[in-house]
Amino acid sequence: MATLSDIGVAAAINILSAFAFFIVFAIVRIQPFNDRVYFPKWYLRGLRCSPLRSDAFVSKFVNLDLRSYLRFLNWMPEALQMPEPELIDHAGLDSAVYLRIYLLGLKIFVPITILAFSVMVPVNWTNGSLEHSKFSHSNIDKLSISNIPNGSPRFWTHLVMAYAFTFWTCYVLKREYEIVASMRLHFVASEHRRPDQFTVIVRNVPPDPDESVSELVEHFFLVNHPDHYLTQQVVYNANKLSKLVDEKKKWQNWLDYYQLKYTRNQSKRPTTKTGALSLCGERVDAIDFYTSKIEKLSREIAQEKENTISSSKYIMPASFVSFKTRWGAAVCAQTQQTRNPTVWLTEWAPEPRDVYWANLAIPYVSLSIRRLMVAVAFFFLTFFFMIPIALVQSLANIAEIEKALPFLKPIIEVKVIKSFIQGFLPGIALKIFLIFLPAILMVMSKFEGLISTSSLERRSATRYYLFQFINVFLGSIITGTAFQQLNNFLHQSANEIPKTIGVSIPMKATFFITYIMVDGWAGVAAEILRLKPFIMYHLKNSFLVKTEKDREEAMDPGTLGFNTGEPQIQLYFLLGLVYAVVTPILLPFILVFFGLAYVVYRHQIINVYNQEYESAAAFWPDVHGRIIFAMIISQLLLMGLLSTKEAAQSTPLLITLPVLTIGFHLFCKGRYEPAFRRYPLQEAMMKDTLEKVREPNLNLKGFLQTAYIHPVFKEGDDSDSDSATDEIVEEPVLVPTKRHSRRSTPLPSKHSGSLL
Amino acid sequence: MATLSDIGVAAAINILSAFAFFIVFAIVRIQPFNDRVYFPKWYLRGLRCSPLRSDAFVSKFVNLDLRSYLRFLNWMPEALQMPEPELIDHAGLDSAVYLRIYLLGLKIFVPITILAFSVMVPVNWTNGSLEHSKFSHSNIDKLSISNIPNGSPRFWTHLVMAYAFTFWTCYVLKREYEIVASMRLHFVASEHRRPDQFTVIVRNVPPDPDESVSELVEHFFLVNHPDHYLTQQVVYNANKLSKLVDEKKKWQNWLDYYQLKYTRNQSKRPTTKTGALSLCGERVDAIDFYTSKIEKLSREIAQEKENTISSSKYIMPASFVSFKTRWGAAVCAQTQQTRNPTVWLTEWAPEPRDVYWANLAIPYVSLSIRRLMVAVAFFFLTFFFMIPIALVQSLANIAEIEKALPFLKPIIEVKVIKSFIQGFLPGIALKIFLIFLPAILMVMSKFEGLISTSSLERRSATRYYLFQFINVFLGSIITGTAFQQLNNFLHQSANEIPKTIGVSIPMKATFFITYIMVDGWAGVAAEILRLKPFIMYHLKNSFLVKTEKDREEAMDPGTLGFNTGEPQIQLYFLLGLVYAVVTPILLPFILVFFGLAYVVYRHQIINVYNQEYESAAAFWPDVHGRIIFAMIISQLLLMGLLSTKEAAQSTPLLITLPVLTIGFHLFCKGRYEPAFRRYPLQEAMMKDTLEKVREPNLNLKGFLQTAYIHPVFKEGDDSDSDSATDEIVEEPVLVPTKRHSRRSTPLPSKHSGSLL
Repeated sequence: MATLSDIGVAAAINILSAFAFFIVFAIVRIQPFNDRVYFPKWYLRGLRCSPLRSDAFVSKFVNLDLRSYLRFLNWMPEALQMPEPELIDHAGLDSAVYLRIYLLGLKIFVPITILAFSVMVPVNWTNGSLEHSKFSHSNIDKLSISNIPNGSPRFWTHLVMAYAFTFWTCYVLKREYEIVASMRLHFVASEHRRPDQFTVIVRNVPPDPDESVSELVEHFFLVNHPDHYLTQQVVYNANKLSKLVDEKKKWQNWLDYYQLKYTRNQSKRPTTKTGALSLCGERVDAIDFYTSKIEKLSREIAQEKENTISSSKYIMPASFVSFKTRWGAAVCAQTQQTRNPTVWLTEWAPEPRDVYWANLAIPYVSLSIRRLMVAVAFFFLTFFFMIPIALVQSLANIAEIEKALPFLKPIIEVKVIKSFIQGFLPGIALKIFLIFLPAILMVMSKFEGLISTSSLERRSATRYYLFQFINVFLGSIITGTAFQQLNNFLHQSANEIPKTIGVSIPMKATFFITYIMVDGWAGVAAEILRLKPFIMYHLKNSFLVKTEKDREEAMDPGTLGFNTGEPQIQLYFLLGLVYAVVTPILLPFILVFFGLAYVVYRHQIINVYNQEYESAAAFWPDVHGRIIFAMIISQLLLMGLLSTKEAAQSTPLLITLPVLTIGFHLFCKGRYEPAFRRYPLQEAMMKDTLEKVREPNLNLKGFLQTAYIHPVFKEGDDSDSDSATDEIVEEPVLVPTKRHSRRSTPLPSKHSGSLL
Repeated sequence: MATLSDIGVAAAINILSAFAFFIVFAIVRIQPFNDRVYFPKWYLRGLRCSPLRSDAFVSKFVNLDLRSYLRFLNWMPEALQMPEPELIDHAGLDSAVYLRIYLLGLKIFVPITILAFSVMVPVNWTNGSLEHSKFSHSNIDKLSISNIPNGSPRFWTHLVMAYAFTFWTCYVLKREYEIVASMRLHFVASEHRRPDQFTVIVRNVPPDPDESVSELVEHFFLVNHPDHYLTQQVVYNANKLSKLVDEKKKWQNWLDYYQLKYTRNQSKRPTTKTGALSLCGERVDAIDFYTSKIEKLSREIAQEKENTISSSKYIMPASFVSFKTRWGAAVCAQTQQTRNPTVWLTEWAPEPRDVYWANLAIPYVSLSIRRLMVAVAFFFLTFFFMIPIALVQSLANIAEIEKALPFLKPIIEVKVIKSFIQGFLPGIALKIFLIFLPAILMVMSKFEGLISTSSLERRSATRYYLFQFINVFLGSIITGTAFQQLNNFLHQSANEIPKTIGVSIPMKATFFITYIMVDGWAGVAAEILRLKPFIMYHLKNSFLVKTEKDREEAMDPGTLGFNTGEPQIQLYFLLGLVYAVVTPILLPFILVFFGLAYVVYRHQIINVYNQEYESAAAFWPDVHGRIIFAMIISQLLLMGLLSTKEAAQSTPLLITLPVLTIGFHLFCKGRYEPAFRRYPLQEAMMKDTLEKVREPNLNLKGFLQTAYIHPVFKEGDDSDSDSATDEIVEEPVLVPTKRHSRRSTPLPSKHSGSLL
């Protein structure tokens, strides 16, 4: 049992390590040669092109201004100074709204903490239940609900507090949803013209024996959206092509490396080996070898490019269809096109840079099978991930290794190595799995076939949260693997489950306090150091960078990482809501996390991260939904806990809480969620009308024609791709059909229209 | 324990009573004076205006053709002769598809019965488990799964059969869904022009200080659907008016009655009393009294009509908006109009005769509260309905009555009355409740605020099914009130529940066989007699009917009654699927029900029922969903049953069954359900184009202008309502706005349009 002083020591250690990170950061960030590591955002926005201070040669690399070392924490107020509208302009709405999640945490938990400390801590403390009991206990337990004797009328305080916390959280959530929804609508409305406002992606175009996909799509939309259809862009399966392009880039890097080596030391031409990993095979001249490789690849790429465009088997039954007006696109995206609801599927096209091109090539029929497979795989990953790890751990057993590989025996028997294998290897297997988990989940989402990066990240975030909820939260409370829990739950009655978990909650408070300090405090402070990009940049800088452009590419600003960051925050919401009534002493630790993380991530968003896409805060319904989920879990667990405390008369009052919360959620879903899923016609019409008045001579077709071309066609030698592009898109508006009219729908002619 | 011979006796009794009903029906239906009771559909369609044979005076009332008595069952082949397309033309798609539910039952259960009898009955029969056991058993149990010893490998047969039945049911369901969906689309496409194809109902129009609802709607749609908007018709709160009209009709009936009485017996003018129920108060001349009453009411109605139209407080924030094309209406119904998703809500307008006018006057904001209230009320109705009935039953106790009302003691002590009270009254309280249950559920659906009769009936059907599932199915299997069951289930673990129910299933087979015979066989045969309409018609005919038109109104053809009929069929699906593997002997009884009901209802649909609306089989997704639900229940219960039979190795194979079934359901939902919810643009465009070509000079506005007027404005004296109608709808297309342009959206002018 951890006492208050134990916690104090742990807190001191973590605060000190956080401070250590900040001091190191303060020192390295003001060194000019690290400028591109810690301020890449400004370079990418073109607002900075070299470190700010650059008078002498030395000061190009090392900061000699001693005063700047004294103000080592002054990045904090700087990070807080930029006002929100400017931040949206600077980093996009996604980032600005992401920061609001931390603020939301503060808004929810600051009043809850104050209330809990002024009301509940005295109520808990002034009992003597634990002192007279035979159980071992600590001061922390004296502050918690455990200290109240069974059947005490004091539980009414906790009940009232549970109501107060629920209402406050709902109030804040509703206000926040409202603000974010209006921010999103305002952002979308005030934005410049973007191709995705006019474009719809249509998938699963049915095959037609007489017409190509491109002609078919053109005809279909000319017939069914005659007044609005503008142009379309079929989707090519360019996965092989982009694989070749990536390969070329890799060889180009090696070529650069050897050329740089040669220019620095002209006495000797660098050599390499032709085999795997440049370790075996014939020794050849490196520059010549890579140059010829790249030339060969360039030829292949050109060939493949031609194939892709000319051969019909590379054309997917999908297309980006653009409309003359936003209204037309909004209509097409929200309606069903044909009798058969599984063909001619239309939805809003993602931003061009948000499109995940590789998945556009997946035939639509296989998507539902893929979804099922991923669901099953995720189930097994969540509940059985311990099995392979336990296997690895058993292999990492000394005796096993000696039996399997007897020749290693003398080495293993060395004491240092032995203790390393015994003490470290089993843990490291789990650690490696947890590090790779987000990547595994991302691979699963990609396999599922989602077509935009933003939706990939959102889906992965949901899965990561579920994994953490089951394996970290429930797993820590009821120790045992997830599968054992599942088995227990199946054999327990519906009202036993909350009791089982509820009872163990107060006992785990100290564990979670330590968890918050290690993962939340020190972890967030470490984030600001950016160790991996720091090392990568300096490696690249010394071996690959020749020109300013190369240096630009060597920067790795990274992104917010919604798929890992948001589930982490949600775990804190969950802990905060669950422990608010049970062990309020945990709340200040969560407050420190939210405050610290807000400052750190605001700094990172302003100076470092470069978002790959802009989804206009499309993730907010997920964020909101998960906080609601945490509230319901906390209410159920409190009900379970109180029912073991012989405070059964409170059960009906506690049952109404989740019902109210679900009702609140349904209300919010109906009221605000459509703003994140659909595009209202009034807004579309307003923007269309304004645009018509302001820019009556706009060539919209020219603007949209090349917007949704696969990036591999855009890159490469420009002349090549341009001609290819022209080939693809410059078709006459009225494609003459090759067949006799089989459908009963004639093309609407001017004549028939005017007769009405 | 019922033996096979007991069942045989019960079957004989029920078959005889069914035959008795048929014979009575055969006799009364061919009497000419009953013609309007048994063939009202033909009168309403205008295909018959008097009984077919009418040579002599006597034969106007009594059929003297003796040969026709011999062919007393010949209505059966007649009912089956009409081909389906003709039936759709005659009675509408709803009725034709409703009959397909019975056919679906035959399609599913005939092969299942054959398979079960050829495979499972021998497997069950050739065991000796029950003979050697100490339990009492009957021959029926020897045919069931109970006869197989625990842990026997023969359970593999049942497992394989469960798979076979599931696959067969899914196959038939899928084929049927496909057929019904295409029937619906074909019906909608081949139909004549109907107002609801062009019309959308918009609800929750936000209040505006400057403009009336009518102007506001007009402006909104002119701005946001400029190319498609045609006209609109605001909704009046005419509930008070229609109440007055109903009252007038009631008095008119009384007046007719007394006038008829007077004409028959001119010697004495009839008198009545002015008080309640004509029992107390002053005695006055009846004809004068009712004439003056009606005159007064007519004046009130005229006054109220004027008020309703002229005063703005009778105008609801809702409107029927019509478009120039089906395409325009389809777009408007499927899209979101404004930023705030809770205002300007658009959905397809129901057919004019399907509109439930009273609910259009409910303000939209109160709908979600009403929905919650109804959900809570339904929960209590389902689980606690026994409490008030038990209360009534305890009051019907002899001792209680004697204590409360001592003066009744001598009467009660009479032996006949005593046994009546003791044996009959407690049962009658429950019976009365069950008779009124559909009406209670209908009132709940009406309170909920659904705006079309068809959706009211669908919602009531869902609730009725749930009630029957919990109180009839589960309630018979685990005897005890629903609340006790709920309590048990909460205290049982998740995998205990199917076991508890599963174990008792084989024991209840005989009970359900009896239930099927009484409710299904004799009940269906009684339906054809139409006792209530028979009595009502002859009462009205003798007291109220003066003219041929009155006689027309005295007919009560009735409707299919989807809200009571469909849940009843579904109970048989549930029983059949649950017992198919467990006690296959139950299946033939269900087959007889489906066959008999199909013939009876086909006869009734052809000759009797007159549907009040045509929803184009919109109920099919509900029917499909409930059969899927029954399948899943049957699979879970089989799993529970087998796990108590020590056939645990089959559990993983049985768990996959519901998973597969749910997967199948999701597939069907995605593939076919949109055909019942949305209107594809391609179809709309096709019909629009065809219509433009065929009828280029169509005056659509004239066709739509009066389509959605409240029926009370249409009835009454025609000249009056017509002028009122004109007043309402003949507004200029461009209503001049009274305010300065506050919105940023100018009306799209021709100029700005042509500049693009």
